[in-house]
Amino acid sequence: MKCRAAVAWEPNKPLEIEEIEVEKPREGEVLLKVVASGVCHTDAFTLSGDDPEGAFPCILGHEGGCIVEECGSGVKGLKPGDHVIPLYIPECGECEYCRSSKTNLCQSIAATVWTGYMPDRTRRFTCKGQPIFHYMGCSTFSEYTVVPEIALAKINPAAPLDKVCLLGCGVTTGIGAVLNTADVEPGSTVAVFGLGGIGLSVIQGAVMAQAGRIIAVDINPGKWEMAKALGATDFVSPKDVDGSVVEYIKDLTNGGVDYSFECIGNVHVMRDALECTHMGWGVSTIIGVAGAGQEISTRPFQLVTGRTWKGTAFGGVKGRTELPGYVERYLHGQIELDSMVTHTMPLEDINRAFDLMHAGESIRSVIIF
Amino acid sequence: MKCRAAVAWEPNKPLEIEEIEVEKPREGEVLLKVVASGVCHTDAFTLSGDDPEGAFPCILGHEGGCIVEECGSGVKGLKPGDHVIPLYIPECGECEYCRSSKTNLCQSIAATVWTGYMPDRTRRFTCKGQPIFHYMGCSTFSEYTVVPEIALAKINPAAPLDKVCLLGCGVTTGIGAVLNTADVEPGSTVAVFGLGGIGLSVIQGAVMAQAGRIIAVDINPGKWEMAKALGATDFVSPKDVDGSVVEYIKDLTNGGVDYSFECIGNVHVMRDALECTHMGWGVSTIIGVAGAGQEISTRPFQLVTGRTWKGTAFGGVKGRTELPGYVERYLHGQIELDSMVTHTMPLEDINRAFDLMHAGESIRSVIIF
Repeated sequence: MKCRAAVAWEPNKPLEIEEIEVEKPREGEVLLKVVASGVCHTDAFTLSGDDPEGAFPCILGHEGGCIVEECGSGVKGLKPGDHVIPLYIPECGECEYCRSSKTNLCQSIAATVWTGYMPDRTRRFTCKGQPIFHYMGCSTFSEYTVVPEIALAKINPAAPLDKVCLLGCGVTTGIGAVLNTADVEPGSTVAVFGLGGIGLSVIQGAVMAQAGRIIAVDINPGKWEMAKALGATDFVSPKDVDGSVVEYIKDLTNGGVDYSFECIGNVHVMRDALECTHMGWGVSTIIGVAGAGQEISTRPFQLVTGRTWKGTAFGGVKGRTELPGYVERYLHGQIELDSMVTHTMPLEDINRAFDLMHAGESIRSVIIF
Repeated sequence: MKCRAAVAWEPNKPLEIEEIEVEKPREGEVLLKVVASGVCHTDAFTLSGDDPEGAFPCILGHEGGCIVEECGSGVKGLKPGDHVIPLYIPECGECEYCRSSKTNLCQSIAATVWTGYMPDRTRRFTCKGQPIFHYMGCSTFSEYTVVPEIALAKINPAAPLDKVCLLGCGVTTGIGAVLNTADVEPGSTVAVFGLGGIGLSVIQGAVMAQAGRIIAVDINPGKWEMAKALGATDFVSPKDVDGSVVEYIKDLTNGGVDYSFECIGNVHVMRDALECTHMGWGVSTIIGVAGAGQEISTRPFQLVTGRTWKGTAFGGVKGRTELPGYVERYLHGQIELDSMVTHTMPLEDINRAFDLMHAGESIRSVIIF
C-alpha cells in the first residue's frame, strides 16, 4: 500500500514528507495505522548522526499510538481494530531475559531491531524505488508501519492514542526507573537531573512511590513550573550554585539524597548524580543516553562507601505484560500525560517538533495523523 | 601499663618492636589483651605511605582476637575475661546508619577512628615519651590495646582467637560481600578477581550462597589449589588469555556472570569485573581498596543495559550484631579459617609477615602474642 511518511534521507537534514510503499505484514507481523506519535530526544539523537547505530535513509519515530490494520500469518493475540503501542524493546516471553524477573531486555530480535531491519532481515518500506530502514522496530513517523506482534502492547481502546502514545517511551521510562529499577521507598529523598519528558516522568514516578522530597535540577528555570505542578518540592539550577552542585545537594539533604536519576545523557552529570547520593545506601540510576564512546568515572570509594550505580532502559518495564497497566493508570488519573503534550501538529510540520525540542520550548510534541 | 608493641615510626620502614606505655581505658573504653592478630593488606597499604589517612608513628593491626582486661566507666556489655573481636567499623546502635537496615557504616566515631585518635580526640599509647597514633580504632600489633565498647564484638569464648581473629576483617568482608552486598542467589554464576584472603573468602561466601559456578581469576596460578579446595569450579589467568579477559569470561558463561567481585584494588580490574557480568542483571561488587585519587570508568551503556555497580566495606556486616554469628558458623564448620592461616609467628617476627604477603606466599600470617 501507499501512504505518507516523514523520511530521514540523511543525518542532520530536515525530514522530508514522502509517499512511500508499505509491504504487507509477513509471518508474525502486524500492519498498523499510526494515529499519533510523540517526538522524542532519541529521534533527534539519531537524526543528528551521533548515533553509531543510525542507518539512513530511515523512518524515525518510536512513541506511537496505533490501530491494528492487518495481521500477518501466525499472529494470534491481535486482530484488526485493536489498539496497540509499539515497543522498541519487545517481549517474546520465551528468551532467558523474558523468563528473568530482573530485566525487560528481551533479546529475541535485538540483532535486527537495532540495525533497521525486520526480524527476517528484510524491510517493509520503499520510497522512490529505494528500500528504507526501519527505526527501533517502530518507525511511527509514517501513516502505516509494520511491527512484529511480540513488539506490540495491546491496550484499552478507551485510551486516547494521542496521549498514551507517550507511554511508548519517555513517560514509562521515567516512571519505571523509579518504580522498577531504583524501587524508591515511601519517604525517600529523590534528585532528578534534567527536566525534559523523562525527568518530569521521574518526578511523577517519585510521587507515585510516595517520596518525601523531590529535588528538581535543571539549568533552565523555565522547567520548574511544570516540575512543581507534577510534585517536585525543591528546585536547583547548577548555574546558580556557588561551587559544586554535589555539595549543594548534600548540604540540602543532610548528607545526600537516597535516590538520584540522570535524565540528560551527560556523563559529567551522571557522576554528579551518583556522588550527591547518601553514603551507605544512595542509589543512582542512569536513564539518559550518552554520546558514542563517552565514559563515566568516579572514585571507587564512592561505591565502597555504600552507593550503587545502576541504569535502565524503558524503565525496566516488560512492555506487553506491564504497559497495558500503565495505560489503565493514566485512565484512572494516576499518571499525568495531557499536560506533557505541549504541542500537536500534523505530519507536514514534523520538523517544527524538532525545532521546539532543541529550543527547550516543548515537553512533548505529538504528531497527529 | 607497659607492654610490647610493633611501632610503625614512619612509612615504608620495617616495624620496630618497642616497649610502650598503654593508658587506662577512659569512659566507654575497654583495655584488651591481644591474643592474636592477622596481618592484612590494608596494614601494608598504610605502611607503604600511599594511604592518605595514614598517621605516623602508629601501631598498625586490625584483625585481632582479644580478651577483655579492664573496662572503663560506663561500659555495660562487657566484663574482664570476655572474648572479643575489635571492629574498625563500630556499631553504636543509635546513629542513622545503625538504624538503617541498608548499611553497616556506623558514623558515630568516624571522625576520630580514621585520623588515629580515640573518640575523645586523645591517644592511649606513648613510646619513648612520644604519643603514638591508633590505627583503624584497633591497633592490634600490641600486647595490649584500648578500644571503645561500641567497636567490640563479644564472641563465643570457645572459639580459638588465633583463628577467629581473621573474622575481624578479610574473611568477613569477603563472605559478607556475597551474602549481604550482592545477595547472591542459589545457582548463580560468580567471578572472583584476585585470590588473596578476601577473594578466597568470596569463594567461601559463594559456596555458602549455593552458587552454581565459581570462576577464580588470578595471574598467579599458585593460588588455584586453595581456591579449588574452597569450592571454585573454574580457573582463569588473565595472562594466559588471548585478548580480553572480559570476552573470555563472557564466552565461558553464555554472556557473562551473574555476580562478580573485585578483591584487588586495581581500577582496571574493577572495570573488567563489571563488564564481564551479564547484560540485564549482572551485579559487580568492588571490595578492593584503590590507591588515592584513582578512578573507575566505563561506558554508561554497561549500566543502561542492566548491570549494577556496587561496593562494600566489611562485607556490609554490622559488627556487634552479626559478627558473633560468623564465629558460630566457624565453630559449626560452615566457615573455613584454619587453612587460611598459612603462617604464624611471634610479634618479634612481624616484618616477615609483610615479606611473605608481598611475595604472595601467605594467605594470612597470624601474630601469636
